[in-house]
Amino acid sequence: MFKVKVLNQAVLEEVLEMPMVIEAIEQVYTLKEQNQTALFPMVFHEFNPGVADMDIKSGHLKGADIFGLKLVSWFGENKDKNLPLLIGTTMIFDSKTGAPQAILNADHITGMRTGAAGAIGAKYLAKKDSKTMLMVGTGHIAQFEIAATLIAVPSIEKVLIHDPMSVERSKDYAGSIKEKLLKNFNVDKEVTFEAVENFEQAVGVSDVIITATPSRQAMIQKDWVKPGTHLSCVGADMEGKQEIDEKLFADAIVVVDDIGQAVNVGETETAFKAGIISEDKIYSEIGAVILGDKKGRTSDEDITIFDSTGIALQDLMTSKIALELADKKGLGTVIDL
Amino acid sequence: MFKVKVLNQAVLEEVLEMPMVIEAIEQVYTLKEQNQTALFPMVFHEFNPGVADMDIKSGHLKGADIFGLKLVSWFGENKDKNLPLLIGTTMIFDSKTGAPQAILNADHITGMRTGAAGAIGAKYLAKKDSKTMLMVGTGHIAQFEIAATLIAVPSIEKVLIHDPMSVERSKDYAGSIKEKLLKNFNVDKEVTFEAVENFEQAVGVSDVIITATPSRQAMIQKDWVKPGTHLSCVGADMEGKQEIDEKLFADAIVVVDDIGQAVNVGETETAFKAGIISEDKIYSEIGAVILGDKKGRTSDEDITIFDSTGIALQDLMTSKIALELADKKGLGTVIDL
Repeated sequence: MFKVKVLNQAVLEEVLEMPMVIEAIEQVYTLKEQNQTALFPMVFHEFNPGVADMDIKSGHLKGADIFGLKLVSWFGENKDKNLPLLIGTTMIFDSKTGAPQAILNADHITGMRTGAAGAIGAKYLAKKDSKTMLMVGTGHIAQFEIAATLIAVPSIEKVLIHDPMSVERSKDYAGSIKEKLLKNFNVDKEVTFEAVENFEQAVGVSDVIITATPSRQAMIQKDWVKPGTHLSCVGADMEGKQEIDEKLFADAIVVVDDIGQAVNVGETETAFKAGIISEDKIYSEIGAVILGDKKGRTSDEDITIFDSTGIALQDLMTSKIALELADKKGLGTVIDL
Repeated sequence: MFKVKVLNQAVLEEVLEMPMVIEAIEQVYTLKEQNQTALFPMVFHEFNPGVADMDIKSGHLKGADIFGLKLVSWFGENKDKNLPLLIGTTMIFDSKTGAPQAILNADHITGMRTGAAGAIGAKYLAKKDSKTMLMVGTGHIAQFEIAATLIAVPSIEKVLIHDPMSVERSKDYAGSIKEKLLKNFNVDKEVTFEAVENFEQAVGVSDVIITATPSRQAMIQKDWVKPGTHLSCVGADMEGKQEIDEKLFADAIVVVDDIGQAVNVGETETAFKAGIISEDKIYSEIGAVILGDKKGRTSDEDITIFDSTGIALQDLMTSKIALELADKKGLGTVIDL
């Protein structure tokens, strides 16, 4: 029998703090660059196209002696059943013995690591002294993106909020986000939050744009984007999803989390399939920029794109630090398996 | 939060009985034949070739409203660490909502469903009134194969035991198996158990042969096998494994659990790659024979082969019945995830 630790949603919300998750995700990217990781092939299955699907992402973090998987399902009809549409579970194993170590609810970890990822793109690729951030999307993930970016890019003074479906929702979100950031992330900064009334104009005045929507067509057009802008695209995680004009990829400095996933399921997919960008025109994976092996932005005029497709290694590393913190605090339960 | 049931090895050994597992695995095969199942692509990773690897098998049992996965690792160096070499964990999810339902130790389930599979091959393909069974391999899985076959093929009167490495081990096993069958499976039959001294001769007098070894080359030669013999091959579950002469596939009636897995990772692989058998020369999947859509054996002279590669659906269905039984008996623990 094996002693296996279980961390549920409540424990994870208690132990994980965004600054340490940002650090953990940077470490994942650099370990990946140093070949201290392996990503296994993704399994994807549609039970009913557009209604219900699931994927299994898995990999090995050699540098942390763990391997594991995250299974995430999306059941659109759960909204009528008072259940979350997205449900995720992570399992962690010891990569020296294969023994199961832990089972974790994946939802909060996914929010934290996805927020950290978008913010790391901005931290390493946006102009120094970026002042204005535009958040596109007001779904579950938006508060994680805003919290992480305000921590990772402290020069931000104004956050514009754009809900692609409704100005009303943008206003509601802009009015309530300050309190959420304080309550959920202990983030209390002198920052203005403003709802977007004119999307094109908002894009044109933003230094940092983060997109986190389930969109399947470009929302941001190329000629709206001013020189010097950075875009972190985190919404596209499966074939067919797209948030920004694929023509932006022709001249931008494009950095990705994983080249294979980016061209197959990421924001880069559409530009790649249209022949606008090839694998060798992708500037690099983000780990090389964090390590300083690649410069990233070369001037205040460059447009930079970070395509964050989301990789299992982020979940594994965030799970690992959550397990260490829970052990210190005596939280979580242990089962005999 | 989700209520998730946990069944460990001890609970599974208490609730699962071989006759019901045989029935469950037959049901899996017939559901598969009726397109009530989906097998997802297998993930396989070698941490260190020949030393440590893992695989993730997953699928959907529509007919039972569950989907899930089994992760199995093999760490050869665990023998020096007092840990099992093979370690498996299964997760079950509700395929109407995606909600996690259960986490189970996979080891005992794997033994039970693998034993049942080999026996089902013999039940549907061996000659009526088969008297002599030859068990090739005396590893962990052998007792499951023998127990299941004695239940599924009640005409068996003699079981020959062959350990490919040593006659001594064959003798030890033949001397102790009767007690194990009674203790672990409640199987108490008037059957003789005999160690094999001459393997070729033993093959020549056997009506049913079950092979369950990690062999990577043919142990049983074609000209040793008499007309009318049935062979259930359960050892080959990854590329390169082989137990019987590939030339046997030229004239035998070949039935498999899954055609895709059989030609890629099963006993059929070598014959398939050598051009001895093509996909359209595989007689059928076993579900068609169980349903009576395909006849299987046509005379007492046919040589029949069942290639049991092992599919995730078997683990899912066996897990499901274990969960139902544990609920009835009030066994297992429940966690909040």
